[in-house]
Amino acid sequence: MNTVETLRKRADDVGHLCVGLDSDISRIPEVVEGDSPSERVLEFNRRIVAATSSVTLCYKLNSAFYESLGASGMDVLRRTIKELPEGVPAILDAKRGDIGNTSRMYAEAAFNGIGAHAITVNPYMGSDSVGPFLDDGDKLVFVLCRTSNPGSHDFQELDAGGKPLYMKVAETVKGWNDRGNLGLVVGATYPKELAAIRRVVPEMPLLIPGVGAQGGDLENVIGALKEGTGTFAINSSRGIIFASDGDDFDVAAGEKAAELAGDIIWYAGK
Amino acid sequence: MNTVETLRKRADDVGHLCVGLDSDISRIPEVVEGDSPSERVLEFNRRIVAATSSVTLCYKLNSAFYESLGASGMDVLRRTIKELPEGVPAILDAKRGDIGNTSRMYAEAAFNGIGAHAITVNPYMGSDSVGPFLDDGDKLVFVLCRTSNPGSHDFQELDAGGKPLYMKVAETVKGWNDRGNLGLVVGATYPKELAAIRRVVPEMPLLIPGVGAQGGDLENVIGALKEGTGTFAINSSRGIIFASDGDDFDVAAGEKAAELAGDIIWYAGK
Repeated sequence: MNTVETLRKRADDVGHLCVGLDSDISRIPEVVEGDSPSERVLEFNRRIVAATSSVTLCYKLNSAFYESLGASGMDVLRRTIKELPEGVPAILDAKRGDIGNTSRMYAEAAFNGIGAHAITVNPYMGSDSVGPFLDDGDKLVFVLCRTSNPGSHDFQELDAGGKPLYMKVAETVKGWNDRGNLGLVVGATYPKELAAIRRVVPEMPLLIPGVGAQGGDLENVIGALKEGTGTFAINSSRGIIFASDGDDFDVAAGEKAAELAGDIIWYAGK
Repeated sequence: MNTVETLRKRADDVGHLCVGLDSDISRIPEVVEGDSPSERVLEFNRRIVAATSSVTLCYKLNSAFYESLGASGMDVLRRTIKELPEGVPAILDAKRGDIGNTSRMYAEAAFNGIGAHAITVNPYMGSDSVGPFLDDGDKLVFVLCRTSNPGSHDFQELDAGGKPLYMKVAETVKGWNDRGNLGLVVGATYPKELAAIRRVVPEMPLLIPGVGAQGGDLENVIGALKEGTGTFAINSSRGIIFASDGDDFDVAAGEKAAELAGDIIWYAGK
């Protein structure tokens, strides 16, 4: 089954929470042991996944936190994904993009090497930089559209021929979606923009990072998402995995995940 | 000495050629032996560097080709850079960029883990995605501005408030350059655009990929570059490192590198 279908079906069962395994070694609780920093990160991931997977649609692994561990970090990425429960997709949050023959190498590394089921990519270099990621139709490719960070104002909001650049990106990426395996990344910090993007791509999967603790935000975000038919995944990283630095960190993460997953289901059902 | 100064001084001695170690395992000559694909790539790089370094300003290592080898590929990156002759900078062509705390991890991985002296980054996520790469003022950060690939038309040329997006990127990035360690990536395939960008950032180092075999192109490219005071590096990858697939591949690479380096010096002196 391809990743788009897997996500859609699993969302019916467990809802729309994506847990971000931004497993920063400097924040991993002391109770997590291992022979090396990389082994500790792997063990931390195992315990977080065990405590959260029953309420989690998918996991997002940001490559930066693993690359910072050196070569062994790449193995932690691969092994974490391999050990996920059957049917739980992993998104490699890598924000890659390069000229065609090079993007092909990145796709090979992400999908065949690391074993990710989906990836995030950057649109700036255009169609031939994204195309190679789409060749395996089973894999899902989320293109950055409107990101959640402050710097997103610098270029993404520029007036690009009568509409903001991020809307141009949404419209253009829609035209690349022959295989139906494209999605967009849209930050939760801008619910109005999210609604406008949703109207352009009602059928595309959306990955939504940057959700806050406030129910108000979440209500607006989910209200915007409900206008479409495509599935969506709402990501929380640090708020879940570092909910506690005590011995009970996994229990705390499980509780936070269940709470957020429940809130999402609540607002989605309203 | 910081990378900008190193490049400037070395350019006075050897000129402006950057050799791209896009060491695709599927194209490495049979004569190159090793216990694993990664060891073969490392040995290939060693022989290419030995044959080319006397005429080469700097090396560019595209991360994708190493990531595609798995965890051991990251060690090949690190070891290749560590073994470069003293005073020859390595650019990690990674095109990274993420929210602030994540970009910090990428910077850690690139500069401290892999040991790169410079990196390429993507501007789409804006200032806080680039900022963490600038914190170590000794390192040089090339921001993608106008790339050499066909897909660069999709977004980079959009009219963003009366000028193309890539010009907006050049102007904006110029405003981030408090430490003087920013540069731009501008493809050689567009000499007129290159000249326009050079006028906006006359003092910034430029990394120029996509140079063709034709002297005409090179003449126009270098003519455009001469309008500024900042240094520049003209990259060739496959045209040099895969000049031959025979036993003499390194000799052939050395000849190609010397030829291109000589052409660059010729046009720069005209």
